[in-house]
Amino acid sequence: MLFQAARIQHCRACGSAVEYRVPEDDNRERAVCPACATIHYQNPLNVVGTLPVWGDQVLLCKRNIEPRRGFWTLPAGFMELGETTAGGAERETEEEAGARIEIGALFTLLNVVRVGQVHLFYLATLKDTDFAPGPESMEARLFREDEIPWEDLAFRTTRRTLEHFFEDRRLGRFELHCGDIA
Amino acid sequence: MLFQAARIQHCRACGSAVEYRVPEDDNRERAVCPACATIHYQNPLNVVGTLPVWGDQVLLCKRNIEPRRGFWTLPAGFMELGETTAGGAERETEEEAGARIEIGALFTLLNVVRVGQVHLFYLATLKDTDFAPGPESMEARLFREDEIPWEDLAFRTTRRTLEHFFEDRRLGRFELHCGDIA
Repeated sequence: MLFQAARIQHCRACGSAVEYRVPEDDNRERAVCPACATIHYQNPLNVVGTLPVWGDQVLLCKRNIEPRRGFWTLPAGFMELGETTAGGAERETEEEAGARIEIGALFTLLNVVRVGQVHLFYLATLKDTDFAPGPESMEARLFREDEIPWEDLAFRTTRRTLEHFFEDRRLGRFELHCGDIA
Repeated sequence: MLFQAARIQHCRACGSAVEYRVPEDDNRERAVCPACATIHYQNPLNVVGTLPVWGDQVLLCKRNIEPRRGFWTLPAGFMELGETTAGGAERETEEEAGARIEIGALFTLLNVVRVGQVHLFYLATLKDTDFAPGPESMEARLFREDEIPWEDLAFRTTRRTLEHFFEDRRLGRFELHCGDIA
């Protein structure tokens, strides 16, 4: 889930070695091809996921892949071309937890500037408890609030999203939470 | 604003010609380097902008660049590495409209699947009327609702965001609107 593209060395169009400079009409350094003039942009990526709820429990997955193998996370992954943010969140929930959900409102939007990512989590309701971990998860299971493995969560955006969820549940209303992870 | 990366032909790491296939442990076709095994992912990008308000007026920019040169838009552009969604929206407002704003809540999140983009617009309040178009704009000016050039708006996400704004203003409350542009 935390893949970050390496620095560009060669032009995607012609294969020549690129040089780093500020293109005309721009104000940032980009990888520019001296042979064919292609400019290569690198931009933040969206990670989309859900917080699947079943009664008073929420669904977490134990990661079977690096980074953070063996730690617990909400189902989430990189948004792909051809899908919406909500559609990607639903796909990741199916892939990582084998879970069928009714997707709800956008719940958290968290900027993780250091790794160039924006994490978006949607509230979701499980349609049944016939979930099963996909190949990227060792285990998928339901947790009540007092069972959440706070010390073994994979990512700070997972923690933040769960904290907002239980807080909002106590307040009796769910609203969008935007924030930045330093 | 509507740049979309061309199909990858060469490896960013070593310059070899890539081949398109589904990597192991994946379910989508990617550009894979047969020489050094680098996998190249292409993902949707975020376009971030604001809806700057001054009393009963909103600020629009007349585009000085393609696509849609000569059409009106809200200040917006591609989110860059090293910034948050709100930070990028504020930067674009400064770059395109020369405007200083107090940024407010996230107002629209619109998926534009066809071009692989997610557009995020924040409500904003102008700090003063000393704005001035940047090089990417021919003109920046304030419009009352009955002056909006609906037929000359650059993008559907601009239109949708303005429609939600005036509707919410009539209702006396502003909330997040998520949607998809077909």
